[in-house]
Amino acid sequence: MSKAAPEFYDVDMPIRSFVTKRLIGVKSGDTVQEAARKMVEFNTASLIVLDDDGEVVGFFTDTDIKKKVVAEGLKPDMPVSDIMVTDLITTDINSDIQGVLELMADKNIRHVLIKEDGDIVGIVTFSDLIDVERQKLGTYISR
Amino acid sequence: MSKAAPEFYDVDMPIRSFVTKRLIGVKSGDTVQEAARKMVEFNTASLIVLDDDGEVVGFFTDTDIKKKVVAEGLKPDMPVSDIMVTDLITTDINSDIQGVLELMADKNIRHVLIKEDGDIVGIVTFSDLIDVERQKLGTYISR
Repeated sequence: MSKAAPEFYDVDMPIRSFVTKRLIGVKSGDTVQEAARKMVEFNTASLIVLDDDGEVVGFFTDTDIKKKVVAEGLKPDMPVSDIMVTDLITTDINSDIQGVLELMADKNIRHVLIKEDGDIVGIVTFSDLIDVERQKLGTYISR
Repeated sequence: MSKAAPEFYDVDMPIRSFVTKRLIGVKSGDTVQEAARKMVEFNTASLIVLDDDGEVVGFFTDTDIKKKVVAEGLKPDMPVSDIMVTDLITTDINSDIQGVLELMADKNIRHVLIKEDGDIVGIVTFSDLIDVERQKLGTYISR
């Protein structure tokens, strides 16, 4: 086998090891401005939205902010509940990478919430999956 | 050589074949709202900014909008010149992929403007470089 051809990870691997368990969230009554500040602070492009019981009731990304607030010429003082997506796309923590990549492609999304025993416990982004490749690219470059 | 290990592209390859020559731009006097609309319309996360002579005078991304407008609680009716980055990071169209990846890593950026004969003629994004890998991943999945 050539040293110049790094191996891919196995797409049958469970998604489990790619899941970020530190979910960054806001309350549904928080303003879009507060949410944007939190996104900048934590350097993230997406946030989950929680109700008063700590239940995940929504999700949104940079694109929702750009499309539903900035492109509409609005001041970001409306609650995040006005821009959040409530039709949450999730997959089980035991899904394999291939299934998650197919889900992302089917739904044209780059973030998937991860459930374990029915509860949302984390998130996987397209970048998380690609970062593995980038690391290999880095390895390749450093050779 | 194993069939299961797709080959990487050669990092000594010139960046030329990865350059998007269709640059999406706004005028420096256009509002952030107008810019956001254009970004949504063209499904892009970055825009170049042109002066009245058609010269590129700035650049900005989703993150600049989020950080400088939304997180500050502002209405997006200010000109894009208020949020654009004027210290443009460019590289020559004859640079190799390795050089561009190193530039992105050094400057912590995901978009690099491309010059040919001293003029800005296009852009390369980190996603553009990664998309090649994604296509291979797709190929791998479909086997």
